[in-house]
Amino acid sequence: MGGMGLSARDAVEQIRRAVPSERVLVDPEVMAGLSQDQAVWAPVGLPAAVVRVASTAEVQAVVQACIRYGVPIVPRGAGTGLSGGANAVDGCVVVSTERMNTIVEVDALERLAVVQPGVVNDDLRAAVADYGLWYPPDPASSPWSTIGGNVATNAGGVCCAKYGVTRDYVIGLELVNPLGEVVRVGRRTAKGVAGYDLVGLMVGSEGTLGVVTEITVKLRPLPPNPITVAAYFDTLSDAGAAIEAVAAAGLTPSALELVDRHCLAAVDAWKNMGLSTDAQVVLLGRVDEPGEAGAAAAEEMAGCFRRAGATWAERSTDEDEAEALFAARRLAFPALERLGPVLTEDVCVPKGRVAEMLGRIEEIALSNEVTIANIAHAGDGNLHPLLITPLGDEAARARAQNAFEQILAAALELGGTVTGEHGIGLLKRPGLDAELSMEVLQMHRAIKRALDPANLFNPGKIFDA
Amino acid sequence: MGGMGLSARDAVEQIRRAVPSERVLVDPEVMAGLSQDQAVWAPVGLPAAVVRVASTAEVQAVVQACIRYGVPIVPRGAGTGLSGGANAVDGCVVVSTERMNTIVEVDALERLAVVQPGVVNDDLRAAVADYGLWYPPDPASSPWSTIGGNVATNAGGVCCAKYGVTRDYVIGLELVNPLGEVVRVGRRTAKGVAGYDLVGLMVGSEGTLGVVTEITVKLRPLPPNPITVAAYFDTLSDAGAAIEAVAAAGLTPSALELVDRHCLAAVDAWKNMGLSTDAQVVLLGRVDEPGEAGAAAAEEMAGCFRRAGATWAERSTDEDEAEALFAARRLAFPALERLGPVLTEDVCVPKGRVAEMLGRIEEIALSNEVTIANIAHAGDGNLHPLLITPLGDEAARARAQNAFEQILAAALELGGTVTGEHGIGLLKRPGLDAELSMEVLQMHRAIKRALDPANLFNPGKIFDA
Repeated sequence: MGGMGLSARDAVEQIRRAVPSERVLVDPEVMAGLSQDQAVWAPVGLPAAVVRVASTAEVQAVVQACIRYGVPIVPRGAGTGLSGGANAVDGCVVVSTERMNTIVEVDALERLAVVQPGVVNDDLRAAVADYGLWYPPDPASSPWSTIGGNVATNAGGVCCAKYGVTRDYVIGLELVNPLGEVVRVGRRTAKGVAGYDLVGLMVGSEGTLGVVTEITVKLRPLPPNPITVAAYFDTLSDAGAAIEAVAAAGLTPSALELVDRHCLAAVDAWKNMGLSTDAQVVLLGRVDEPGEAGAAAAEEMAGCFRRAGATWAERSTDEDEAEALFAARRLAFPALERLGPVLTEDVCVPKGRVAEMLGRIEEIALSNEVTIANIAHAGDGNLHPLLITPLGDEAARARAQNAFEQILAAALELGGTVTGEHGIGLLKRPGLDAELSMEVLQMHRAIKRALDPANLFNPGKIFDA
Repeated sequence: MGGMGLSARDAVEQIRRAVPSERVLVDPEVMAGLSQDQAVWAPVGLPAAVVRVASTAEVQAVVQACIRYGVPIVPRGAGTGLSGGANAVDGCVVVSTERMNTIVEVDALERLAVVQPGVVNDDLRAAVADYGLWYPPDPASSPWSTIGGNVATNAGGVCCAKYGVTRDYVIGLELVNPLGEVVRVGRRTAKGVAGYDLVGLMVGSEGTLGVVTEITVKLRPLPPNPITVAAYFDTLSDAGAAIEAVAAAGLTPSALELVDRHCLAAVDAWKNMGLSTDAQVVLLGRVDEPGEAGAAAAEEMAGCFRRAGATWAERSTDEDEAEALFAARRLAFPALERLGPVLTEDVCVPKGRVAEMLGRIEEIALSNEVTIANIAHAGDGNLHPLLITPLGDEAARARAQNAFEQILAAALELGGTVTGEHGIGLLKRPGLDAELSMEVLQMHRAIKRALDPANLFNPGKIFDA
């Protein structure tokens, strides 16, 4: 048993009385696979145990044991996070909610679903589609990531430009709070203003304020079939101008994604999808207004692309082909990971500053001699420069870290944020300090201390309490 | 100078050094008009002063003076609230932000506006319409209420069924916090997850966590012209069935309002709009899908109304006539107020329980011998039974109070909330205790104490700190 002090040993013993022992893991090798997310650059501690909880009562029992013995708790979904938010700290108990994967209820009339935290995003989407309904937030990890993890990070995705992020859909939560109490916050009704917005506060709090055990989300009707418009550009700068032109034209794309040649080449090398083009940058736009309005919007978007200098821009006539391009977009991150450790950025800037930000990223790549691939939810200014370093090359790693910090600084300078959708976790803590004033950080700490006075929940994530 | 203890006298003296004396009001008669909102049944205290602040710096000076001398602060917009949230407490300083009414910026490309808190809702809507943009939240008070007040209560309105409430549009805030610091929370970008959602926490906190001094809201493109479908019903029960049928058909109305004959008669008696009909209940639906989709949705809504028993249901061919009906809806509350003190309910129940809730309200009216008029944002289950009592009739008032509590209890029993959009203020404090668990109330108190340790901001509103 690694990382287990005396008090942790007592806590684990108490947990074993509430949770069957096959779901209380203490073997360091077994735990290793459940002790970190995909932020491979972030530090990872050695937990005292990983508990695969199966019910709210088990979560409460684990939390109460940890409170009693002062043991840190690190909640965990599928571990697809990109900021280190789910990384274990030494001697903690990792609470994995993957087994709590029941879709409790879909209510088509009220347009809501109630799910346990371990339900995989795509599984929820498939289940509600049977009712003609849609759960929009669609992080690229949607085939694997869980709604609980999506709630912890306030996950975004491709459709956010038009349809919003996780927080826009969560209306009620059951959670075990840091006092070990099972509480319900929020509502089931369309509206409600009874008290503070504790639901919104929990969403995006990265496991620092409790363990979510049930989630009520609102749903939308499935949107009309989208029309895809693809375009190739010779430079990031032209693509950036096209993104601004789409916003200036007053269009509201249901997706507007950017993928550069590094990403396309990596996906193609892996999946042999026949993607490689001569384009340096591809933009993938989608509109989903019904009927003629959609056709008109698609035409206008293609026009924006062309006027900004696209070497090719067309409305897709083949939805399979269009879907393949979006699949390639979703596979970009794992494809690049095959080439070496990837440091993922997640800055978000105003739409009118995307072109400038892309230019800054190019300069930073050059001056630091770092390979930077770019994918982006370009329509909402959320850029994901991916910094790639050869495995084991410490000098390259240091240069990449320097580039990472420079990109954060550039985003703030352009009126943006250090994290659009991945969260602060461990990787962006210096970025948070740079973005928020001392006074606002103190407000964060005051709330954390108020709700988690013993600082047991995911300590050290987001900020030092 | 009424209600002024020694410490309040010192605070006002300090305030006079920062704010020109013509905007520091201490005459009890002048203050009376600025000491309460429209919840005429809620208790009102006597302030030490009402300060008409004109800048963030003045707000900060007022707050710092109040902190120094331990004087309560009651923030105030236009005073159109309906729960007593803006009512003065004895010896407080009321901070009126009506003078801070500058629209600082409209950015069409980023689809956002930055406003001071005293900007009137309709003024913001008019200003952004010049850019083809739209700020959706539209409380019935929109010609008078301010964005600051809308933020404090998380105001809703007619279009919320489709387009959401105030919190869905506020992305950034400047505020003076209870430590007297000017802080900025939130963002200007489309997305952002840097730290806790302090913006969402402030929205709907009814002035208990700070004074908002600047608000950044996101905007949408102006929607297509709506199609209005009106229908008459003989009973509330039939109208309730129609509301459920619209939800069951999968329609997403941009408005679905209920107005009963009490309201129509009161508006007509006041404004002579020629509204009176033989209908007991009118439903006003709107759809705004573009082109043929809208026409189809309107036809389907009319069908839902007819099948539920409407005595008449037609798509309006005259948009002026349709607008008059919506105007009557908005005037219902002030029209009824002319008949006697109105106690306004604001329950929200699941859409599938609206018919049942309307039935309960009728029973409660009968058993308590109280006249109850009904208006409702029916499409999202948000009902506003209006309890009307003859002025000075104490027995009737007691019966109305009893009916009020019974309606809250019935809403909770049907899975609803005691307040859909008006807030807790003073009137709904027992309702909040009934709706939230002790543990969740304690979480509220912990946050309040963490951010406002001296309990100076709007003390006694929402809950006892």
